[in-house]
Amino acid sequence: MVSSEELLDILGNETRRMILELLAEKPRYTTEIASLLDIGQKAINDHLRIMSEFGVIEPYVQKQPRGSPRKYFKVNERFKLEFTLTPGFFQVYILDSDVDLKSILESFPEFRELQKKVEHIENIRRIEQSRKVYRDLREELSRLRQAKMYVESLMARVRQQCIKLIDGLDLDPVEKRVLFEVVIAGGEITKEEVAEKCKISEEDIIQTLRTLEKKGVVRL
Amino acid sequence: MVSSEELLDILGNETRRMILELLAEKPRYTTEIASLLDIGQKAINDHLRIMSEFGVIEPYVQKQPRGSPRKYFKVNERFKLEFTLTPGFFQVYILDSDVDLKSILESFPEFRELQKKVEHIENIRRIEQSRKVYRDLREELSRLRQAKMYVESLMARVRQQCIKLIDGLDLDPVEKRVLFEVVIAGGEITKEEVAEKCKISEEDIIQTLRTLEKKGVVRL
Repeated sequence: MVSSEELLDILGNETRRMILELLAEKPRYTTEIASLLDIGQKAINDHLRIMSEFGVIEPYVQKQPRGSPRKYFKVNERFKLEFTLTPGFFQVYILDSDVDLKSILESFPEFRELQKKVEHIENIRRIEQSRKVYRDLREELSRLRQAKMYVESLMARVRQQCIKLIDGLDLDPVEKRVLFEVVIAGGEITKEEVAEKCKISEEDIIQTLRTLEKKGVVRL
Repeated sequence: MVSSEELLDILGNETRRMILELLAEKPRYTTEIASLLDIGQKAINDHLRIMSEFGVIEPYVQKQPRGSPRKYFKVNERFKLEFTLTPGFFQVYILDSDVDLKSILESFPEFRELQKKVEHIENIRRIEQSRKVYRDLREELSRLRQAKMYVESLMARVRQQCIKLIDGLDLDPVEKRVLFEVVIAGGEITKEEVAEKCKISEEDIIQTLRTLEKKGVVRL
């Protein structure tokens, strides 16, 4: 599975973003993409290879009504990258889990109505209806975005509060950094994860955690 | 204001992501960043300049207790980039609006409780409390993420449905493309925006919309 870092590297290229936009619409083959974007086939091939290697897209072979089979590319599975940057909060997040429909409908009963509308237009197949339903969905999405922003702003406040509290303790910079990550993780973090987040070796993390325990700041 | 395309270009660089992570914590100065990341000051300066030009970060001068004033950088304002890629759905979204607290609390009354908890820990200043409140906030964020994923999956279904319906109409590829963007926008889209999305000149858009009107598919 691609990491959020790798995904940002992939998306930091305009051509790749345009290719992904085309593939999100429907599966396509190399010469088709090259012609739609008016870019050489070799360059397109390189981008397709990189994105396939990271598992963002996936090639498959499809028989043609006439002539030999052709290699198509499609978006591999559900990718979702979220990026938040604000004073006090920097986060890159990849969602790769499936949606747990049952718990969502319990938590947001109003979604049943939206689901029914979508099923309805899939049956009656009228474009004007689709337009209206899509507008309703966009409004719901905007409501959820606002809600997420609000929760994230509360999280930023707690983080700032933690930084202030920790800054007031008699600890060295590395100890402060490790303590912050442990607190923010809610205590549910492995030594490997702390090491990864603080960019410090695991042995140093273990040593630091022992010191923090001796000072009575954490319980291991 | 930086565009989502520009922001992805900025984030497609590991050093810049590390700088943003440091600045999200608190304002810092160039030599401090260079030393924390163990990267040459010239390179750091270049990244800081690029990000300042795009308005992602902001320099300011601060007097020092001793010596001459020093130039600091801070995260400029609220940036939030969301990226969604899934078969049938590709979207990059920047949020730059402020949160409308009143309408959020009406829509999500359960947030009042979370807000009270955050205010409480800001008063009592205990790290163990912060840890618990942060965990509650993370759970709420995860619930909202799931809800957004679900709404986006419904949107993908409607988009796929529209593409199928439009593909069945007797229209040329450009007419189909323009019609899709108009439908998905819920009818509330300017000619300039359609031109931007379809990467076609405005004159061609006007011409295409006229043809679509003659064919009885849209009303201008």
